[in-house]
Amino acid sequence: MRAAVIADGDVTVQERPDPAPGAGEVLVRVRAAGLNGADMLQRRGAYPAPPGSPRDIPGLELAGEVAALGPGAQRFSEGDRVMAIVGGGGQAELCVVHERQLMPVPDSLDWPEAGGVPEVFTTAHDALFTQAGLKPGERLLVHGAAGGVGTAGVQLGRAVGAHVTATVRNEQLRDAVRDLGAHEVLAPDAFADRGPYDVVLELVGAPNIPDSVNALNTLGRIAVIGVAGGFKAELNLLALMGKRGSISSSTLRSRPLEEKALTARAMERSVLPLLARGDVRVPVAETFGLDQVHDAYERFAAGGKLGKIVLLI
Amino acid sequence: MRAAVIADGDVTVQERPDPAPGAGEVLVRVRAAGLNGADMLQRRGAYPAPPGSPRDIPGLELAGEVAALGPGAQRFSEGDRVMAIVGGGGQAELCVVHERQLMPVPDSLDWPEAGGVPEVFTTAHDALFTQAGLKPGERLLVHGAAGGVGTAGVQLGRAVGAHVTATVRNEQLRDAVRDLGAHEVLAPDAFADRGPYDVVLELVGAPNIPDSVNALNTLGRIAVIGVAGGFKAELNLLALMGKRGSISSSTLRSRPLEEKALTARAMERSVLPLLARGDVRVPVAETFGLDQVHDAYERFAAGGKLGKIVLLI
Repeated sequence: MRAAVIADGDVTVQERPDPAPGAGEVLVRVRAAGLNGADMLQRRGAYPAPPGSPRDIPGLELAGEVAALGPGAQRFSEGDRVMAIVGGGGQAELCVVHERQLMPVPDSLDWPEAGGVPEVFTTAHDALFTQAGLKPGERLLVHGAAGGVGTAGVQLGRAVGAHVTATVRNEQLRDAVRDLGAHEVLAPDAFADRGPYDVVLELVGAPNIPDSVNALNTLGRIAVIGVAGGFKAELNLLALMGKRGSISSSTLRSRPLEEKALTARAMERSVLPLLARGDVRVPVAETFGLDQVHDAYERFAAGGKLGKIVLLI
Repeated sequence: MRAAVIADGDVTVQERPDPAPGAGEVLVRVRAAGLNGADMLQRRGAYPAPPGSPRDIPGLELAGEVAALGPGAQRFSEGDRVMAIVGGGGQAELCVVHERQLMPVPDSLDWPEAGGVPEVFTTAHDALFTQAGLKPGERLLVHGAAGGVGTAGVQLGRAVGAHVTATVRNEQLRDAVRDLGAHEVLAPDAFADRGPYDVVLELVGAPNIPDSVNALNTLGRIAVIGVAGGFKAELNLLALMGKRGSISSSTLRSRPLEEKALTARAMERSVLPLLARGDVRVPVAETFGLDQVHDAYERFAAGGKLGKIVLLI
């Protein structure tokens, strides 16, 4: 098979042996694979693949067709359209995925959209609902709303009846975030006196923590899943106690198989129906062929886009 | 009635009008009332009573006998032994309490013990189980374990099958904390390399946060309910994410009636049976009569004790 391969700080296409599915696993013929921030870190050597994943083939999500079933695999049949989060190896013609991590692709999604669904929607859904317990009528603040997870968070918040405030650094992307359903879109320094917020989806990190704590509603929850803006935060414990507030944090990549499978089941139950009827969608900023993988990474790293960069394989 | 009254930074005994129970309320003839840190703050003028509580009569917990029922009150009968957390006013001969905040006093508890139960056990139970979800087999770290809530936390952790590590600043109190059930008792700076901990009960505050985060187990939870050692904490968001950890915080005093009532029901279900059969107990350090309330406050403020200071009224 042909695969994106990371070596010496760059990413190129190389021939690799076809992988074979083990017990309970599925061989997927990959059609689309979204790029994510972790791929950029891995390209720099700063984010090694977890055990069990290909060491030098990047890619944390994929969509494609079932090509073969390993012993005992029974959730899908050959030819089924599937998508998943994987620990690595998604940016290749073939990838082995445990069947319990796979989700069906709704008929209404084309390949570029499907390739960009798993990582951002699973991350946003897990943070907003499993971690922070967002409920209808609550006020949600999404920091870094123009990024992949941010766009998913804004849409999911809107779709469940929350009031959504978004902060976006790039002025030119604010209208697009409003079009996704945010009730108000603010500059990063303008949210403090627009609260109180019941849930804060933190994709920027440390710089927002003091004002986010002060702007929390009673029983407010901050879910930290990104720290691109810095990770050393000042936390006023007395202010947090006054709100009876909480700060949770998480990553998907380090979770064991059974926990990843649970997130896939939560997606099937709560997010795929919204995707299927178009209540939420995956904005795709640009697509690249596998041979253009270097250009795709450069495009991602350049930023300034709204929506996913997706490899078509 | 006679009541402890706070004025000009001191606490004295004064005559006050008897309060009368309203709808759903109960008039309690107070027999014992534990002192708490918040009383010391209120004496200094730093912790005003919440709306609906007597402005200048301190006391956040009480035990006594039902003296009269307000209209519609039906959970208890005259003469029943009851105890409760109150927003204020507990350090007086009479106190009005909503019946849904009252709990029955187990037969095996004498008045000094009963007067010291509500605040520390409700606070510790709420933080350990409702907030942090402590489970059997997990490792619990209690910071400030020689204080009232700390002694309750150590005992509850031990009673539910957790492994309990306690930190205690005062060397002379470490054996007593071990006698309460802690598996190991450490100096405040010695816990960092003895983890990982699944739950941290934080009664000291900011100074412990960096090491507590680093010593968390995967999916570990820090419950902050005291900040006597400082409230401006450094929080490494990346370290917290690496553990998929969380920090919750709370206070009891600011909660609305229905939430306080829920904590009373949780106490009745989960803690009173343990108190009744002696699995957990209230260490009473010293008792004072109401006329000695000034001395009681001075004794509390001096510290160095293990267990509750209780007024007998």
